[in-house]
Amino acid sequence: MKTYLDCLPCFLNQALRAGRMVTNNEMKLKRILDEVGMMVKDIPLENTPPETGDIIYRKIREISGEFNPYQKIKQKNIKEALSLYPSLKEKIEESNDRLLTAIRFAIAGNVIDFGVNKKFDINKEINEILRKKFAIFNYKKFKELLAHSKKILYIGDNAGEAVFDRILIEEMKRPVTYVVRSVPVINDVTYEDAVQAGIDKVANIVSSKTSAPGLILKTCNHEIKNLFEKAEFIISKGQGNYEGLSNEKYPIFFLLKTKCWFIANDLGVDDGDIILKGNFKN
Amino acid sequence: MKTYLDCLPCFLNQALRAGRMVTNNEMKLKRILDEVGMMVKDIPLENTPPETGDIIYRKIREISGEFNPYQKIKQKNIKEALSLYPSLKEKIEESNDRLLTAIRFAIAGNVIDFGVNKKFDINKEINEILRKKFAIFNYKKFKELLAHSKKILYIGDNAGEAVFDRILIEEMKRPVTYVVRSVPVINDVTYEDAVQAGIDKVANIVSSKTSAPGLILKTCNHEIKNLFEKAEFIISKGQGNYEGLSNEKYPIFFLLKTKCWFIANDLGVDDGDIILKGNFKN
Repeated sequence: MKTYLDCLPCFLNQALRAGRMVTNNEMKLKRILDEVGMMVKDIPLENTPPETGDIIYRKIREISGEFNPYQKIKQKNIKEALSLYPSLKEKIEESNDRLLTAIRFAIAGNVIDFGVNKKFDINKEINEILRKKFAIFNYKKFKELLAHSKKILYIGDNAGEAVFDRILIEEMKRPVTYVVRSVPVINDVTYEDAVQAGIDKVANIVSSKTSAPGLILKTCNHEIKNLFEKAEFIISKGQGNYEGLSNEKYPIFFLLKTKCWFIANDLGVDDGDIILKGNFKN
Repeated sequence: MKTYLDCLPCFLNQALRAGRMVTNNEMKLKRILDEVGMMVKDIPLENTPPETGDIIYRKIREISGEFNPYQKIKQKNIKEALSLYPSLKEKIEESNDRLLTAIRFAIAGNVIDFGVNKKFDINKEINEILRKKFAIFNYKKFKELLAHSKKILYIGDNAGEAVFDRILIEEMKRPVTYVVRSVPVINDVTYEDAVQAGIDKVANIVSSKTSAPGLILKTCNHEIKNLFEKAEFIISKGQGNYEGLSNEKYPIFFLLKTKCWFIANDLGVDDGDIILKGNFKN
């Protein structure tokens, strides 16, 4: 996805929110905004938003001296998600369509997002998303392609969300390679987070070797590019990965809840909609 | 009111919105955002927001080459407000408290604001504000001071709002000096707009000699400063004038509806509240 003009003021808002995770010092926060303000002129609209996010979050790390400002919040989110895990597994057992229920849970986990949203209630979100109608629903194609795929490439998004991803991974019953961010960026999932969420029990965890808050293939190393080249079935979670991967030609299914009007518009849906979208003609 | 950190991303949003009134050209709009982004570092938080607004809207005029982008919208707003004028006067006749009803109408007109809001429904707004409870209600003091004042200084805000101001001016039955912006900025009221709204029939119109979207006394000429020095009773309409005048020591009553969380917070009320606030101890 390209950068919209409206993304530019939003980058300043994101910088301020991320800065406040690190410091209450008004002068430091002003300096972060000054620096991001000066960056605006160097952001080409052809960039995907996570490419810009990468530069901005680097700058915040540089000014604040904090490498992992969301660490505590991420740990809290993962713990909270893990405490829900047994009851979610029970709900899977009781459901008529285990795979679809697991997909819904994986989308519910996507609400744990500090890049765009400030507040969320995960229990409320789970109950809503279990009943919510999909705005894009390529589920038939998802099942067909899954039936013919021997392995899965799964692009993780937020740290707490990984627990919900684990439930979907367990239902797909295929070997999974789970891609995480190399460096902490916002509350995105890193190797350590994925292990804490128990992903290591159900998948092979691979680092993306980039720090952007969304996977951008051209900035990835040969290993990741190769995984995409050989992939039969790819799951991309969340907005950041959608922004980075939406123009790629691989067999990707995007699972997300839209939390930004411009991403919703890019998908042709409303803000707040839930999406199961394959990036190919149906 | 000082500039909050959160005002800085908002300035970019405002610049984009104002830019879109002038052009659809993405490159021009990007240039406006680039320039405003570079300005962020030069905005001291001690500035009132309209001081910064002044610089930003100058830059938009400079880049776009458009001096009065809101002209058509302002004329449409004034015409629409004028068409409501007879029925509003009837409602005044029917009301138990003519002055208070006129104050409520003057606040309803304040919703015609393109600086912060995009959409509004003036008829809906009027009906809501007629019933709405004031979050700050210094009405007793307003009536007391009015009874002892021989003349009124009235600081106008938006163009369409001037028609609603006219109704309040007619109810106060005192000679009124109505202060307008010297130069078109957003949809704020200028001399021509005030005449179109019929203010010349009920008040002496004076230009503020500044182009900021809110009155800032230190940037005004001797004539305006003198008006404040001698004023017995001042009405300040809207958020922009509140931002510029909130720390002044003159006998000012602020009439507005809050449309921004940070201004509401500065006033100690909720976003969307209506306010009749005197800037002195009661």
